[in-house]
Amino acid sequence: MIKKRLFTPGPTPVPESVMLRMAEPIIHHRNPEFREILTRVHANLQYLFQTAQPVMVLSCSGTGGVESTFVSLFSPGDKIISVNGGKFGERWVKMPKTFGLTVVEHKVAWGTAPGVDDIRALLKQHPDAKAVYLVHSETSTGAATDVQKLAGVIREESKALVCVDGITAVGAHEMRFDEWGIDVCVTGSQKGLMIPPGLAFIALSPRAVAAMEVSTMPRFYLDLKKALKSWKENDTPWTPAVSLVVGVDAALQMIRAEGIENIWDRHRTLATALRAGIEAIGLKLFSSTPSFAVTPVWVPEGVEWKKFNGTLKARHGITIAGGQDEFQGKIFRISHLGYYDALDMVTIMAAIEWTLAECSYPVTLGKGVGAVMRHFLKP
Amino acid sequence: MIKKRLFTPGPTPVPESVMLRMAEPIIHHRNPEFREILTRVHANLQYLFQTAQPVMVLSCSGTGGVESTFVSLFSPGDKIISVNGGKFGERWVKMPKTFGLTVVEHKVAWGTAPGVDDIRALLKQHPDAKAVYLVHSETSTGAATDVQKLAGVIREESKALVCVDGITAVGAHEMRFDEWGIDVCVTGSQKGLMIPPGLAFIALSPRAVAAMEVSTMPRFYLDLKKALKSWKENDTPWTPAVSLVVGVDAALQMIRAEGIENIWDRHRTLATALRAGIEAIGLKLFSSTPSFAVTPVWVPEGVEWKKFNGTLKARHGITIAGGQDEFQGKIFRISHLGYYDALDMVTIMAAIEWTLAECSYPVTLGKGVGAVMRHFLKP
Repeated sequence: MIKKRLFTPGPTPVPESVMLRMAEPIIHHRNPEFREILTRVHANLQYLFQTAQPVMVLSCSGTGGVESTFVSLFSPGDKIISVNGGKFGERWVKMPKTFGLTVVEHKVAWGTAPGVDDIRALLKQHPDAKAVYLVHSETSTGAATDVQKLAGVIREESKALVCVDGITAVGAHEMRFDEWGIDVCVTGSQKGLMIPPGLAFIALSPRAVAAMEVSTMPRFYLDLKKALKSWKENDTPWTPAVSLVVGVDAALQMIRAEGIENIWDRHRTLATALRAGIEAIGLKLFSSTPSFAVTPVWVPEGVEWKKFNGTLKARHGITIAGGQDEFQGKIFRISHLGYYDALDMVTIMAAIEWTLAECSYPVTLGKGVGAVMRHFLKP
Repeated sequence: MIKKRLFTPGPTPVPESVMLRMAEPIIHHRNPEFREILTRVHANLQYLFQTAQPVMVLSCSGTGGVESTFVSLFSPGDKIISVNGGKFGERWVKMPKTFGLTVVEHKVAWGTAPGVDDIRALLKQHPDAKAVYLVHSETSTGAATDVQKLAGVIREESKALVCVDGITAVGAHEMRFDEWGIDVCVTGSQKGLMIPPGLAFIALSPRAVAAMEVSTMPRFYLDLKKALKSWKENDTPWTPAVSLVVGVDAALQMIRAEGIENIWDRHRTLATALRAGIEAIGLKLFSSTPSFAVTPVWVPEGVEWKKFNGTLKARHGITIAGGQDEFQGKIFRISHLGYYDALDMVTIMAAIEWTLAECSYPVTLGKGVGAVMRHFLKP
C-alpha cells in the first residue's frame, strides 16, 4: 500500500474537513444560505489580503483572474510594464498584447527577481505606463519578488498601478494590500487557499476601481465592473462555482483560526527547513531569491530526471513538479504551499533521499531529514 | 426535521455517489491519472452531444462558455442573428454587441419559441449573417425551441452557423449534434450533467472550427482555438477545475449506463406527468412550447408569490425558482432537470398542493398527486 502525496504548487492538498464540506448537498446561489456564505467569504478574503477594499470571487482559473484585470482596468493602446522571469511572467506579457495593450517587457533571468533600480529606470523611461505587473512568487522558477519594496518605488516614481500576480504567493508570503499600496492582487483557489482549482480572487484599490471607470476594453464574463457591482450586494453576476465557494468558506475559517501572520511564519519555516535538508545532502537550490511557496532544486549531476521522478511517484506515491522550457529535466520543484506542516517536510525529504539512493546517487540516508528536523528546533 | 430539496434549473441536485467522488483527495492535472479521466470525459461528452466532433471543457459558467464561442468564431463587425425570448436570449444579444458584433435581434414573446417562417425570412433579409443563435430551452420562461427543425431551415437557406445555447437542454432534450447539422452547442455542468456549477462544455462542428481559423477577435482565457489544441492531447490550456472534472466523469458514467435515449424519455415523462398534476388542480402553464427541463406555472389568482415561496421553503424545505423581470411574482418555475425520478414529481406535487392550501387556495389534497401518478402508468 502506497499513499499518494501531492507536493505540487497547485493543485495543493485539500484539508479533509474542507473536502467533506464541499461534498454536502448543493445549494442554490440565490438562496439566503448561500448569500450568508458569500458574505463571510468576502469578509475573510479581505483579512487574507489585509485590505478594506473589495476582493471579488470569479469562477475561472488564476489565468482568467489576471485576464479580468487587463480587460477591466485598461483600454487598447494603454502602456503597461510587465516583469517576465518565468512561465507566468511570460504569460502576463503575451496576454495583454492580445488585448491591444502596449507592453514594455522587463525580462529577468529565470530564478531571479526584478531589482529596484531597474524598475525605477523603466518608470523614468516610460512615464506614461499605466501599470506595472509583478509576479510575487513565480511558480515556474520558485523565485520571489520583493513586492513591498517595489510597490514603494512604483508609488514614489509614478502614478502607475501596482498589479501583483499573487497566485502562488497569497497565504505563503506576507501581503499587506492596503499598507503596501498595492492596487491589484490576484490569487487562485488551488494554492494557499487549499481548495480545488476553479476560482480566482481579485482585490482592487480605489485607484484601480477609478481606472475601471474609464476603461473601454470589451469584456463580459470577466468584467470586474459587473463583479464589483454584485460584490457590493454579496452576490455574483453569473452562477458561481457553488461547491468551491463553500470550500473556500471552510478554508478561510481555518486561515482565520490559525492567523495570517502565523501562516506566513509557517511557510517561511517550512521552506527554510526543507532547504536546510536539501543543502545538507549536497543538492543546490535553483533560485537566488527563493519563494516560501515552492523550492526549486537542480537535478544533481548523474541523476536522470525521468527516472528520479518516476521512482518518486511509483515507489513513494509522491508528485512533485519538474522544470519548464529550457529547465525541463534540469530542475525539480517541491511545493509547501497551503496545507503542509513540519512532518510533511520530513516526509518529502525522506522520499527524496530514498529516491536519490535508488537512482544510485551517493546520499547518507537521514542526513537531510536530520537537518530539516534540527531547523524546526531553532529558536 | 425538514429535508432540503432543490427543484431549481441549475444548480440541480448532485447524486450522492458523485459528491463523494468529488470529495476524494485532489489529483494534479498533469498526472497520468487525470489525463485518463479527461480522456474518458471527452469521449463521454461526445456521446452526450451525439457527435464525433470535439467537445471541450472550459472552467467557467455557461455564460463564459457562450462567450467563448462569440470571441473564438467571429470578428468584430460580423453579423449574427440572435433569438431573444427570455433572460438568456437577451444576454446572447447583449454579449456579442459588447465584442463588436452586429446583432440582428429576433424578439419572441416570453414563453414562446421562434417559428420556422420568421427564421427563414430573417435569413433572406440578412444573407450575410454568419450565425444564428438559438436557445434550446430558455430557463427563464421554460420554453423549448425546435432546434432540429430550425437547424434544417438555417442549413437550407444559408451558410450561417447553427449555434445552440443548450445550457438547460442538453441531457433533457434530444440533441443530435451531427445528425441535425448543429455547428455550436454549449452546456453547463450544473444542469443535465448533475454536478456543481463551474464547468462549461462546447461542441464545435468542422464548419465552426474553420470559422475559428479566420476569427480575429482578441481572446485568451476563453480561446477555443487553444482549447481545441489541448483537447487533441486530452489536456486543457489552463489549470482546469479538477474536482468538477472528476465529478463530471462520474456523472457521465451514470449517463452512459442509463442511456441517452432513456434519459431524454425520462425527462419528457417527468415533465408531462408533473404538468398533468399541475393542470389537474386548475393551475395554468406559462409556456406554449414547454421545455422538458423546467415547468413554468402561473401563480394562481389570490395567491401571493412571496408567501407561497416562503411557505414552500420554510415548511417543506423546497427551493423552486420564481419569475424574472415583468413576470416576477407572476410565475414560478419547477425544475426536473438531471437527477430526478418519478417519486420526486410526487414529492414536488404534494408540496405544491400543501402550500397552496396553506395559502388558502382551494385545492383537493391529492388530486394533482393522483394525476401525476396515473400519468406514469400510461402505456
